[in-house]
Amino acid sequence: MQRITATILTIGDELLIGQVIDTNGAWLGQALNNIGVWVARRVTVSDKWEAIWQALDQASQDSDVILITGGLGPTKDDLTKPLLNEYFGGKLVLHEPSLKIIEGIFSRSNRQMLDVNIKQAEVPDVCTVMLNPRGTAPGMQFEKNGKLYFSMPGVPFEMKGLTENYVLKAIQDKFELGQVLHRTMTTIGLGESFVAERLSTLENALPDRIKLAYLPGHQAVRLRLTETLQPGQKAAIDDYFLQMKESLSDILVTDQDISFAELIADLLLKYGKTVTTAESCTGGYLAAQLTAISGASAYIHGSVVSYDNRIKENLLRVPKQILDAYGAVSEQVVEHMASNVRKLMQADYSIAVSGILGPTGGTQLKPVGTVWIAAASEAQVVTKLCHFRYDRLHNREATSLQAFNLLRKLIEAENQTPEFPG
Amino acid sequence: MQRITATILTIGDELLIGQVIDTNGAWLGQALNNIGVWVARRVTVSDKWEAIWQALDQASQDSDVILITGGLGPTKDDLTKPLLNEYFGGKLVLHEPSLKIIEGIFSRSNRQMLDVNIKQAEVPDVCTVMLNPRGTAPGMQFEKNGKLYFSMPGVPFEMKGLTENYVLKAIQDKFELGQVLHRTMTTIGLGESFVAERLSTLENALPDRIKLAYLPGHQAVRLRLTETLQPGQKAAIDDYFLQMKESLSDILVTDQDISFAELIADLLLKYGKTVTTAESCTGGYLAAQLTAISGASAYIHGSVVSYDNRIKENLLRVPKQILDAYGAVSEQVVEHMASNVRKLMQADYSIAVSGILGPTGGTQLKPVGTVWIAAASEAQVVTKLCHFRYDRLHNREATSLQAFNLLRKLIEAENQTPEFPG
Repeated sequence: MQRITATILTIGDELLIGQVIDTNGAWLGQALNNIGVWVARRVTVSDKWEAIWQALDQASQDSDVILITGGLGPTKDDLTKPLLNEYFGGKLVLHEPSLKIIEGIFSRSNRQMLDVNIKQAEVPDVCTVMLNPRGTAPGMQFEKNGKLYFSMPGVPFEMKGLTENYVLKAIQDKFELGQVLHRTMTTIGLGESFVAERLSTLENALPDRIKLAYLPGHQAVRLRLTETLQPGQKAAIDDYFLQMKESLSDILVTDQDISFAELIADLLLKYGKTVTTAESCTGGYLAAQLTAISGASAYIHGSVVSYDNRIKENLLRVPKQILDAYGAVSEQVVEHMASNVRKLMQADYSIAVSGILGPTGGTQLKPVGTVWIAAASEAQVVTKLCHFRYDRLHNREATSLQAFNLLRKLIEAENQTPEFPG
Repeated sequence: MQRITATILTIGDELLIGQVIDTNGAWLGQALNNIGVWVARRVTVSDKWEAIWQALDQASQDSDVILITGGLGPTKDDLTKPLLNEYFGGKLVLHEPSLKIIEGIFSRSNRQMLDVNIKQAEVPDVCTVMLNPRGTAPGMQFEKNGKLYFSMPGVPFEMKGLTENYVLKAIQDKFELGQVLHRTMTTIGLGESFVAERLSTLENALPDRIKLAYLPGHQAVRLRLTETLQPGQKAAIDDYFLQMKESLSDILVTDQDISFAELIADLLLKYGKTVTTAESCTGGYLAAQLTAISGASAYIHGSVVSYDNRIKENLLRVPKQILDAYGAVSEQVVEHMASNVRKLMQADYSIAVSGILGPTGGTQLKPVGTVWIAAASEAQVVTKLCHFRYDRLHNREATSLQAFNLLRKLIEAENQTPEFPG
């Protein structure tokens, strides 16, 4: 078995100057990793001939698979196709099936094709075309010195289609791939170094082929075990993963590689329950995460964003005297919000949050980062006070994790002997 | 004046296998670009000694500034500090001011320090320490052969603090920087190639020092002009930008480099108006974007997520016979949602959306990607039917842009002679 390595090469000034965040790289990394390809490097270069050429040369030296995204548009700043044509010594020819796709896209939107669009159907005669029904730029596969090169548009939806339909299969057909296993868990409430301290004996005992990585962020720490298996070798990862779970059971949130929102969705589906949210400072962010998951209608029917006190009072029926006496950011207010939104939305569970995310709005008694969270069921309301010290968006993220975690514990406590008591 | 180039080097397997999306790179790219540093390359490598060393060597060959993030944690998989120590030929010494910061962080959270945390206060004696009050890993600055190297933690909040407080100033002190000017506009409703066709004469007439880039995405196309100025040279970018605006006035959304939500916020603040949302398929995503902006309480008081028909009926008072006759995804329903949520929330404006984002839920008559949008004021309700062909999350993004754009036009029509009539 060979160890197959990949370089992901992304082309575009917009990425380098930060106008666009590169989400393709992460997605491609996951996809390659899942089939046992090791991503050794990710490189982003400018829309410049020499920069792209040099990066291709370097990738060719030390990678078996080179994935190139971007620079395939119809405009003048798109250099990838002519460059690859020259790099692999081809000449551009019209590709009829791709032209048909492009014509179809234009006829469906009732628009006339331009010359530049017809040019998009041209490909180097030394490539294998990957048909791209999702857009006007065909994907291209090249092979040289036993290495595979794939060129795809940077538009995520198009890139994903090509990867799923062509790229992964072509790599699997060409190379005998080892197996790479991952196990991921998430903890909350203990810093990275304390988690590491608890696991130090276990970590030192890991065989060479198993690696432990820490992925800290916003109060939560994700831990990932990775095992690279040779053919015929028996996996040992699950034994070590189980030991880790036992060592961390009091702070464990999930032993799956899923987000907090996905975990809540899974629990609600498992127990046939529904949830709603009443959000002040998070302004709909919790509901947006819960509804981003396909099938959300099974567990969430609606939510209320009550940014202003009048909405808390009129719609969520938080008594005015409570608001006046304790302020909007208080245990009493989130308790009322959680209880009342649950009834209003006829849900089994609810989350309510009220806090000061900053940068303004803090006071001596309630500084920026003060957040009250409540989770409610028919039987009870539980609350938690948090003090975050990040900026606005990171405070929002931390609030979201703590709120989902509070709800997780309530759901687990009411529906089972909790798997993880923490 | 020199042309100063930078490499951003990010370290971490979690980025390569796609468990974490790299947002630091984009943020750093913007920050460097703003002070006139050209980011030539962004590289992500594995937590492996040789990979980091090689990437450092390559960056040293062709960049003046090398920014390194990640690999500074207290755990075994963090190699950056010992590696930099060896790379620059230093020895590790305890840095007392950093130790004080670490002790403070632990005492505030009532936790006892571990040996690994004390070790975090050690730094190579050949670096200049950048104090990091936001975390336990100090930043480090090195200088060699006239090049500057900065090592920072990968945690975005810590990295941002160090960049803003040390890195940018150190670069400006060391190098005489040229000026890089950007002008960005956003259009909606016309594909990239058609926009390019309209601008072809202008694009061909651009002087060498001005570059035009297209950033397409979800129905919208952002266009960026970039001019690199030598000292004493007069900027020409605004003349060309004005010509572009005139050529694209019918499809122009904004001539600022801001998001659609930020544009809505700016308009509402400018005219002293408020907004609310009633969201079915977007599930709070519009409200979350509007409230993510600091100062949101001035223009949004609340929102309703009405994922389920019962919420549309009971809370938003959409008549049952309308829901039965036309279905939840219909012009009639979003009209009622928009009108009623505006009254319920006592807002000046409202947006309502109802659609099928997929992958399931489509029918023959209303396939996946069918979305109805409405925007309402006291005087009127306007609607728009959209057909998107992306996946769930991209359909949500496209919905969000179209909804904000519909509202933008309504606000502009009612409050001014619209700046951009499209």
